[in-house]
Amino acid sequence: MRLFLLPPTFKGEPTLELSGKDFNYLIHALRLKEGQEIMGRDRDGKLWDLRITGIRKNSCILSASAAQSAQSKTDALPEERPLKPIILYQCLPKGRKADDIIKKATEAGVRDIVLVRSRNCVASLEGKEETRLSRYDALVAEAIQQSGSMVPTKVHGVIDISAVAEDFRSRSCGMESLGLVLHQTRLSESQSDLFSCVRGFNGCTALVVGPEGGLEEEECMMLLDAGFKAVLLKTNILRCETASIYAIGAVQTILESSC
Amino acid sequence: MRLFLLPPTFKGEPTLELSGKDFNYLIHALRLKEGQEIMGRDRDGKLWDLRITGIRKNSCILSASAAQSAQSKTDALPEERPLKPIILYQCLPKGRKADDIIKKATEAGVRDIVLVRSRNCVASLEGKEETRLSRYDALVAEAIQQSGSMVPTKVHGVIDISAVAEDFRSRSCGMESLGLVLHQTRLSESQSDLFSCVRGFNGCTALVVGPEGGLEEEECMMLLDAGFKAVLLKTNILRCETASIYAIGAVQTILESSC
Repeated sequence: MRLFLLPPTFKGEPTLELSGKDFNYLIHALRLKEGQEIMGRDRDGKLWDLRITGIRKNSCILSASAAQSAQSKTDALPEERPLKPIILYQCLPKGRKADDIIKKATEAGVRDIVLVRSRNCVASLEGKEETRLSRYDALVAEAIQQSGSMVPTKVHGVIDISAVAEDFRSRSCGMESLGLVLHQTRLSESQSDLFSCVRGFNGCTALVVGPEGGLEEEECMMLLDAGFKAVLLKTNILRCETASIYAIGAVQTILESSC
Repeated sequence: MRLFLLPPTFKGEPTLELSGKDFNYLIHALRLKEGQEIMGRDRDGKLWDLRITGIRKNSCILSASAAQSAQSKTDALPEERPLKPIILYQCLPKGRKADDIIKKATEAGVRDIVLVRSRNCVASLEGKEETRLSRYDALVAEAIQQSGSMVPTKVHGVIDISAVAEDFRSRSCGMESLGLVLHQTRLSESQSDLFSCVRGFNGCTALVVGPEGGLEEEECMMLLDAGFKAVLLKTNILRCETASIYAIGAVQTILESSC
């Protein structure tokens, strides 16, 4: 099953013309022919029945109508129920690691990916935040399409680690909230078991993942003071790009378990 | 905490001389000085107290003695208990994706990574199996060092999907065994919940992850007939390089939970 992510300019018009990457994706990658249909999703998460009504040399014309039922064309999607919201607070990693983290988190249906500046961050987006975020948007769009994700994942940033607790309060907007800080070494303070923290939880979960050098104990304490729980993954010391998707897999599997 | 993976040639000699990459790692990356110590692990998983006794231009001399206690120098390691054995049966993905999968699985302490040929595999290691496996060994060594993993991860391959059940029987050698096949679409046959399969299990777990095109229903059925369970991840459709570490995170967190 494929889900086509409509461009941000689409506002519910009955016909639209697509060119460039979108045209290539539909006509050359998916090889859709005139008359064929595909499910589309707009940037607000709303579903649309799309039909190719014309193919030109460098563009194609589609008709769009609000989808009758999400299930009509998404029969291969594993989940009917929406996934429980997860927010990833990812301290900026070096180089292209952020790309990998963002792609994988989007596939898994993380709702918000918030890039965070912390003391041990070597990377910085200063002066290039806007171009970088627009590149991340493109990665997100591609990952949503590939994974058929119904979650309108967004990348935000960059905020300081000291603003994480407040940001999480505003994003969880009234839902029950559970903030988790992944910590790779034992803290003097008590650490929780990820499994028992997450089990049976039914609200909005935040995961804070440190940069290459980890979070400073002081930064952790600040989050714990704000109500976050420090969790120790019961594994080896993971690289930051491994820690995020490893923890997302663990958290989501436990959250979504019906048992 | 750092753990130095001793070269395969080390057989317990009281002194050893290291050059090349190992020398660079210890002297240039870790900046160890004469007299300083580091914990080493040989290829059988045995720990050694190592001390730098001499530094030359392109090599260094170390003394080695069997470690008194794993805890003496590995205080930052999150786990005292050994991790429960996990075997990843990874159908060959395209391009460099295998590198990423192998690194992340090694960090997480997967014991064996077995590369598998299945019907939808586009990649093939034919004719280059040996060079490729030796490259993978180098990736594994680096990931073990970075993660301080006490698990002597090994990459094996390539076997046919039809040989997976038999391979798992021989690798789980008498332990209780749980074989899981990740499947991204609903099967006509019953599918299990990963959480309830893994919860409380105390033996050797195998995870079969398909290639880009997924496993054929027939291939799944063959594994189910051999006693594997098909599990549907409660998430979107994941790329194969995301599915493996996502599932490892989920399985290991549930396996290692004391609750």
